[in-house]
Amino acid sequence: MSRTVWINGSWLPEQEAKVSVFDRGFLFADAIYEVTAVIDGKLVDFDGHMARLRRSCASLSLACPWDGEALRALHQELIQRNQLDEGAIYLQLTRGDSGDRTFLCPEGTEPTLVLFTQAREIVNVPQGIQGIRAITCPDIRWGRRDIKSVGLLAACMAKQEARRQGADDALLVEQGFITEGASSNVFIVTPDNRLVTRPLGNDILHGITRGTLLKLAQELGIEHVERPFTPTEAREASEVFISSATSLVWPVVAIDGVAIGDGAPGPFTRRLRERYIAALREQMA
Amino acid sequence: MSRTVWINGSWLPEQEAKVSVFDRGFLFADAIYEVTAVIDGKLVDFDGHMARLRRSCASLSLACPWDGEALRALHQELIQRNQLDEGAIYLQLTRGDSGDRTFLCPEGTEPTLVLFTQAREIVNVPQGIQGIRAITCPDIRWGRRDIKSVGLLAACMAKQEARRQGADDALLVEQGFITEGASSNVFIVTPDNRLVTRPLGNDILHGITRGTLLKLAQELGIEHVERPFTPTEAREASEVFISSATSLVWPVVAIDGVAIGDGAPGPFTRRLRERYIAALREQMA
Repeated sequence: MSRTVWINGSWLPEQEAKVSVFDRGFLFADAIYEVTAVIDGKLVDFDGHMARLRRSCASLSLACPWDGEALRALHQELIQRNQLDEGAIYLQLTRGDSGDRTFLCPEGTEPTLVLFTQAREIVNVPQGIQGIRAITCPDIRWGRRDIKSVGLLAACMAKQEARRQGADDALLVEQGFITEGASSNVFIVTPDNRLVTRPLGNDILHGITRGTLLKLAQELGIEHVERPFTPTEAREASEVFISSATSLVWPVVAIDGVAIGDGAPGPFTRRLRERYIAALREQMA
Repeated sequence: MSRTVWINGSWLPEQEAKVSVFDRGFLFADAIYEVTAVIDGKLVDFDGHMARLRRSCASLSLACPWDGEALRALHQELIQRNQLDEGAIYLQLTRGDSGDRTFLCPEGTEPTLVLFTQAREIVNVPQGIQGIRAITCPDIRWGRRDIKSVGLLAACMAKQEARRQGADDALLVEQGFITEGASSNVFIVTPDNRLVTRPLGNDILHGITRGTLLKLAQELGIEHVERPFTPTEAREASEVFISSATSLVWPVVAIDGVAIGDGAPGPFTRRLRERYIAALREQMA
């Protein structure tokens, strides 16, 4: 079945879902995005994604003519039109098509908003249950990773390198510390049972799932600290996992070919994953 | 008059020149580009641009199904169909549309190639004759600026900041040294009459115009050295200029509100600019 895609007020079959080659999203990566998970036909952490979208807009002086309620209605209509039960809704907002290529965007250019669905399993996936194998590689992304921009070529290259090495994903390293995964935040559990993740800043994405997991860890009485950690510390950790809107929590069972702990998902990771999925279902009930 | 744009074998009126929202150029900035100047209806330094395109492709394992002669013929047909006398031809090659959004590009995805013209004056422009005013700002771009990718949001932000401060362009600073302009290479002339520009590496674009200017400086007997230089050295230089395919040579007459030299384009800059324009016309004769 062909998807129905929404572009600036029009519902289009996916084959006809096109933007101008003069759109700044295409020419300059002058665009931001959000990916909201859908489980049981319902939006997960929608308010968090919209708050981050507003932050990205503000950082780029990018106006979004659609308010939170209009965007929620669009997300819900996409779910309904595409009969989406589990998967994600992708939203991309660009500075628009000003009719030609110029670094400075002319005043009065109208933004372009695109939304489409992706049907796929999120909860019962092998990566979440059995875990994934990661490599480490240099973090060569730009300096504003807190802005969720579509400038994702470095992330694509890191994932491509992971595949080349027979792994599933990449953990990015800058100045001796892991920043995050190629499209996720990273947590470790130290041998003395502390949950550690890098603090927020310009150098990592402010993950919605990351924030929720820290709250759940608090509720579960898991001691946690936000500080940078090294690849060596990660390889020697009891447990490592990544989080994102569509992976939720995926155990990392090996880094650069070195097994983490006993090479199987550990108890803290499993507990947080289960608690997170339960919390999602409660939130949506 | 509407331009005629070329997309993957089709000639289209610009209003109909569109790409899929699933194109990786739109979703991931997984795309590279070249801008070739056109003067007197002829291509400037075409071979240099095509050599750099091949280097960008190789760095990204991106296949370009069109060889140099096919691309030259396309450029020439664009000039003819659009009656372009002076301006530029923009080429963008993306990893293509694989029908959905996935970080890893599926095997067999066909690249997307887009070319369009931009008619505008290049030689007799006030910026080239009277010079421009620049600001300095932090270089927050990714680590592979030698790959001419469309991930240009940081450059857009720098130019936007320049405009906000009432200037024309931005010089980017990393770890205490100027890397390049927001869309150009930067040269200074020191008080002892040496031409200085940053050496090639991953941290700057390998400018075609930059390379030609260094050769011309050699021919003109101008002593030159490739080494990093600081914003202070630039502000205290006798002359500063930027180079790019479409600006050729633009004197920088002020940086952060401080006049360079006597605040007017200097003799080395004027001489190199004149010699460069003469060399272009000889090359094309």
